[in-house]
Amino acid sequence: MVEKQDLPVHRARAFLEPGPILLVTSCHDGERNVMTMGWHMVLEFTPSLVGCMISVGNHSFELIRQSAECVLNLPTLDMLDAVVAIGNCSGRDKDKFAGFNLDVQAADHIRAPLLTACHANFERRLPDDRMVKDYNLFIFEIVKAHVAPQPKHPRTLHYTGDGVFVVAGKTVSRRSDFRLGLLGNGR
Amino acid sequence: MVEKQDLPVHRARAFLEPGPILLVTSCHDGERNVMTMGWHMVLEFTPSLVGCMISVGNHSFELIRQSAECVLNLPTLDMLDAVVAIGNCSGRDKDKFAGFNLDVQAADHIRAPLLTACHANFERRLPDDRMVKDYNLFIFEIVKAHVAPQPKHPRTLHYTGDGVFVVAGKTVSRRSDFRLGLLGNGR
Repeated sequence: MVEKQDLPVHRARAFLEPGPILLVTSCHDGERNVMTMGWHMVLEFTPSLVGCMISVGNHSFELIRQSAECVLNLPTLDMLDAVVAIGNCSGRDKDKFAGFNLDVQAADHIRAPLLTACHANFERRLPDDRMVKDYNLFIFEIVKAHVAPQPKHPRTLHYTGDGVFVVAGKTVSRRSDFRLGLLGNGR
Repeated sequence: MVEKQDLPVHRARAFLEPGPILLVTSCHDGERNVMTMGWHMVLEFTPSLVGCMISVGNHSFELIRQSAECVLNLPTLDMLDAVVAIGNCSGRDKDKFAGFNLDVQAADHIRAPLLTACHANFERRLPDDRMVKDYNLFIFEIVKAHVAPQPKHPRTLHYTGDGVFVVAGKTVSRRSDFRLGLLGNGR
């Protein structure tokens, strides 16, 4: 396993805006869990804000709400088995970390663990839960980003429903056609 | 151009959850515009809700806010030139529909036009603008979905920043490993 590097948090958009399935780890009061999540969006570069829909029916919901923190972990194609298995059982019934042999590391700023096998891990705190009541919509701030140095464009998984994932394919650069002010991953 | 078909609106997630770049068309008071958008998320199946971040600096912002409606259009790899060009100029300076030869069709329920060349078009109304002030976050409801019958998994564009797009690649089905309650595109 290659050691991950710190990424300035405003650059997390490079990995989140493409819309991958994520694994969300949480920890509260001695209990921890991991869930899959596909409903999320970037909201701001600085502070580095991300909106996430976490259904109240998920076991992770209260762990995240009560602890007001979680980690977004970015899995890739080689982790598809784990992604599907994690999404198809509940932390109510099972310790998914042990059950699916998930190696973890301690986060720097929060209690929820980092999933070692993932390409990137984003530690997040919850500054705004006003929209949780109406939409199960949490607004998190990324406070630390850990990213594997290679590959630059990981083979992420994008969920379409019905058990079908689209895998991130080739990349196309149109950098030379962009206005300077629109380049970069922050502002 | 193949004729599009109606899709039940709760199934829009199949095209939006994977996280593609979208083209947003709007119309207000005789003026219309089109912009690119990468910051969006599915929020609910029924009603079919989508959250979108539209920066107040965009010319489309007021057209969308005032009209309280817009269309999400889903472009594919063959439209990359138009996507980049649309994202790199402002409707303040230019009629992008004429400038980029964008064919349009009338929507069924709203005034903003559908972009004919796109794989799908989602007509949307704005039921909730409470989060616009703090986050430029609009919560829209899809009221009509028009989708090309083929291909089932279009080659959508996913933006990473820095002028680089990831193109949707191969699909992988793990349908047989899913719990029945998690299949389908609605609930």
